[in-house]
Amino acid sequence: MRLVFGIEYDGTDWNGWQTQRCNNTVQDTIESALARFANHAIKTTCAGRTDSGVHAKGQVIHLDTELERPVWSWIRGTNSFLPNSVRLKWGKEVSEEFHARFSARSRIYTYSICNTPIESPLANRFHTWIFKKLNDEKMKKASVYLIGKHDFSSFRSSECQANSPVKNIKRCDITRSGSYLSIEIEADGFLHHMVRNIVGCLYEIGIGERSEDWIKVVLKSRDRSTAGKTLPPQGLCFKYVDYGRDLFCGQE
Amino acid sequence: MRLVFGIEYDGTDWNGWQTQRCNNTVQDTIESALARFANHAIKTTCAGRTDSGVHAKGQVIHLDTELERPVWSWIRGTNSFLPNSVRLKWGKEVSEEFHARFSARSRIYTYSICNTPIESPLANRFHTWIFKKLNDEKMKKASVYLIGKHDFSSFRSSECQANSPVKNIKRCDITRSGSYLSIEIEADGFLHHMVRNIVGCLYEIGIGERSEDWIKVVLKSRDRSTAGKTLPPQGLCFKYVDYGRDLFCGQE
Repeated sequence: MRLVFGIEYDGTDWNGWQTQRCNNTVQDTIESALARFANHAIKTTCAGRTDSGVHAKGQVIHLDTELERPVWSWIRGTNSFLPNSVRLKWGKEVSEEFHARFSARSRIYTYSICNTPIESPLANRFHTWIFKKLNDEKMKKASVYLIGKHDFSSFRSSECQANSPVKNIKRCDITRSGSYLSIEIEADGFLHHMVRNIVGCLYEIGIGERSEDWIKVVLKSRDRSTAGKTLPPQGLCFKYVDYGRDLFCGQE
Repeated sequence: MRLVFGIEYDGTDWNGWQTQRCNNTVQDTIESALARFANHAIKTTCAGRTDSGVHAKGQVIHLDTELERPVWSWIRGTNSFLPNSVRLKWGKEVSEEFHARFSARSRIYTYSICNTPIESPLANRFHTWIFKKLNDEKMKKASVYLIGKHDFSSFRSSECQANSPVKNIKRCDITRSGSYLSIEIEADGFLHHMVRNIVGCLYEIGIGERSEDWIKVVLKSRDRSTAGKTLPPQGLCFKYVDYGRDLFCGQE
């Protein structure tokens, strides 16, 4: 039996999603909580790995099990073995064709910025603080160049394990609400550090250090060294995975 | 010279505002950071004390000093001695008639609720989680009975030191955005635990355990034992103090 679960976590104190030698990862913690509930070892497959300090509102995993229990029991039971910073939010039984990673049509990440002269203790945890005033109109103009299918090598970390640097960005929506900026990017997939490197370039344009067209030059160069810096992880959140159908309607 | 500062803090790890024997209070931490900057002991007076675990977006303090420095230096210097969870956000020189507590015309508190079947790791820190579905229309109807000048003894903790239980609630706005409820109350002043006790009653009405009229009965009884429970501190935030003039325009 294949089960799929939606996962939310505050990434602040975790070494990212994926099992590593250094421990303290969300994957390890969830797999051991699932195993305690199921009373057998469980391996999970996720929709997208997140880095150390990155949050998730809508991570998705699947797993295979012989244990027949209502999905609601899985959720409540497993959550009782998890720390407050990680929760299974919804779940469903799916056919064996469903794959958390390969069935995904697109993924949405949001990068949140607190753009105030003094940093905000109430925003610190889930926003990156930028004290220089950002011109979001310029950032919006620049972001348009990223839409579509491109080779995103310029925005790819050297540790990226993806087969191809070509991804299709469906939208990049930049919205400002007072001192808060949200940059939401939907794509078929993302390279390692891709969002944080894109936002690093938009940042340089936003503070006026670069023109809007510069991002086109960076993109075309396919050279990481031409791009801006990698912005910090705490502003990043893995928001949603689109599987082309509403798998989880009303369960959240 | 009298200075006034706006303070923001994440109250999660603090034993509230006021200096206590048990230490670890926001007031102690701010006063010692101010003293390090000013190189002399500093006593502060706040607009309103907050309890352990309660947050502040718009706490206001005043202090007296002989040190002549630009306000911006006070802010930057003091912030450099503060942990990330506390920040001076703005400041201004004021006349000696100004008093952070007694000059206030009204104070605004917001109580934030995450109303989802499963708790949310991303909301935990600044919201109280209530899994039973809340009927906000009923809560709104009930809240109307609280508006105006009343004896709020029913919503006052036994430790409250206020001279009078009579306060004037100017508004109580309940808004829902998806699964999130915000209850914002503006009053000339608040008794100890007043907001958390009011929301405790609105909660019982929201989950259908009590009728909308019940809050009128509670209010009239002037008896704490008739009211609901005190809801937890993490949903509460001291948002704003109104001094009848825009003291701090453009500084935030």
